[in-house]
Amino acid sequence: MEKVKVAVDAMGGDNAPLEIVKGAVEAAKESAAVEVYLVGKKEVVEAELAKYEYPKERVVIVDASEVIETAEPPVIAIRQKKDSSLVKALEMVRTGECDAYVSAGSTGATLVGGQVIVGRLKGVERPPLAPLIPTENGPALLIDCGANVDARPSMLLQFAKMGSIYMENICGIKNPRVGIVNIGAEEEKGNQLVKETFPLLKNCPDINFIGSVEARDIPLGVADVIVCEAFTGNIILKMYEGVAGTLLKQIKSGLMSCTRGKIGGLLVKPVLKETLKQFDLEEYGGAPLLGLNGLVVKTHGSSKAVEIKNSVLQCVTFKEQRINEKIKEKLSVQD
Amino acid sequence: MEKVKVAVDAMGGDNAPLEIVKGAVEAAKESAAVEVYLVGKKEVVEAELAKYEYPKERVVIVDASEVIETAEPPVIAIRQKKDSSLVKALEMVRTGECDAYVSAGSTGATLVGGQVIVGRLKGVERPPLAPLIPTENGPALLIDCGANVDARPSMLLQFAKMGSIYMENICGIKNPRVGIVNIGAEEEKGNQLVKETFPLLKNCPDINFIGSVEARDIPLGVADVIVCEAFTGNIILKMYEGVAGTLLKQIKSGLMSCTRGKIGGLLVKPVLKETLKQFDLEEYGGAPLLGLNGLVVKTHGSSKAVEIKNSVLQCVTFKEQRINEKIKEKLSVQD
Repeated sequence: MEKVKVAVDAMGGDNAPLEIVKGAVEAAKESAAVEVYLVGKKEVVEAELAKYEYPKERVVIVDASEVIETAEPPVIAIRQKKDSSLVKALEMVRTGECDAYVSAGSTGATLVGGQVIVGRLKGVERPPLAPLIPTENGPALLIDCGANVDARPSMLLQFAKMGSIYMENICGIKNPRVGIVNIGAEEEKGNQLVKETFPLLKNCPDINFIGSVEARDIPLGVADVIVCEAFTGNIILKMYEGVAGTLLKQIKSGLMSCTRGKIGGLLVKPVLKETLKQFDLEEYGGAPLLGLNGLVVKTHGSSKAVEIKNSVLQCVTFKEQRINEKIKEKLSVQD
Repeated sequence: MEKVKVAVDAMGGDNAPLEIVKGAVEAAKESAAVEVYLVGKKEVVEAELAKYEYPKERVVIVDASEVIETAEPPVIAIRQKKDSSLVKALEMVRTGECDAYVSAGSTGATLVGGQVIVGRLKGVERPPLAPLIPTENGPALLIDCGANVDARPSMLLQFAKMGSIYMENICGIKNPRVGIVNIGAEEEKGNQLVKETFPLLKNCPDINFIGSVEARDIPLGVADVIVCEAFTGNIILKMYEGVAGTLLKQIKSGLMSCTRGKIGGLLVKPVLKETLKQFDLEEYGGAPLLGLNGLVVKTHGSSKAVEIKNSVLQCVTFKEQRINEKIKEKLSVQD
């Protein structure tokens, strides 16, 4: 069996290196198809690895003396820190030494590095960052939430195609429903970008376009692939976090304000926790940066071992399902 | 004492005419400064009014034979239904017969009618719709959530000034903090519109600009006036509704899934209800359409009497605080 080689940024994220190394080890143990390259300060990674039993031939340390911090300006950091775990790991994908890259580190540096180091697939105008978000009907793909705003209609059409391939092949949703984020359901509604993109999506034979999706209906799960420009995507993603977080905080403080609430609160705690979990963006693991010469997966900054493990295993499916070949195929078709 | 004359669209909204008429009557009873004009089908409004005791000289029926439905295309509806309650009520503001207009009816028709019938104040580029949204620190003004998207930087500067005047004089927040919705805190982040607007806000002496606000932090109450373009504003507003609604639905169904949850659920119900109320957009009553020759207030389609009453009373404060004079003054200043 051909191995899927994944370069993991061992130094990136709030819980690095502990949870990152642990997750990578768990992935290697769970799937014999996985070969992980833990990129980071050698002695630090070695000390972490020493805690576990693992298949030595499939867990390899790659020394990198520097670390890119979350607060650093991405472009400068990538240019200057050539021996950082992030740059070295992405280089391994560029050269083909690895198939994929997983990091819980700086989003900005991952997005920039993905584009300038790994590079775009031929025909891809812009690589979108596409996290899975929770809905009442299971996860939906929100594409694009990246750093490049002010997209053109042709880019959004590509997002729709790439997102459909991803949802069909990685999440197993046949003929995924594609919607464009809009401020009303009617075709004539929207800003200039949406109005120009709408007919492109409508006339594209490769996707199952269902029309406009209002933000209010996104949590209901009305679409599987939610297409938008990155500024809009970022707001949707952050509103999920912000509203859910504030609401639950208020419920908790409300429960603590009286005896009746305290008693009831103890009883409902397990249910609340379970509900919270279904609605937690982090549960879904990494967001792929699609359309690159390889796979780049960005997991949440606060990722624990389970998310790193899932992100690494996701790379196996990505390669096995030949996602990039399918993207190349679909994007070369003239609409 | 000079009366504040408010034209109320008696036929607009899911609960018209019952709750609309009831709310208007309550407002007239609560404040002797209020004179309400109930615009709608005479016999229908009369039948509703017959249920209440009220000051007859300050509750007047204005007959209008037609009704504009929510689903009608706004521009056509306004052009064709000259004898609709919406058009007639807005006409009363245009002619100066009334100071303000309150409706729970079609948002689109209210926005269009406000602009083309009532008309803009001199110097106002575009009238923004500015609802109050709940935050952990009390309400904040989200400006603009209207129907006109693709705004220019100079419009957003005007939104910031108008919003500041509103929050200071209507909500009593001294020196309200103004933030611009962005995808990061740094000044260099954002789309073209935000990047061009940022220096205008930063250099404006009339407002208390605090910089970029990330969507995640909006529910925390980090700013009092949240400036954005209408497409973005619409998404923020709809995500509030959507995420809160779905989350609470999931919590409820979670509680019903086991005995322990059911018992706990009964105990926590009052607290949940109270929390929900704090987070309910509808609690804050009407959203003003600012910058017009008069005041136009749009309340939620599902408004009950209490919201109509509050919206009518809000018109009194608006006139007493001379908001439009203050807007004219501030917008004529060259920055």
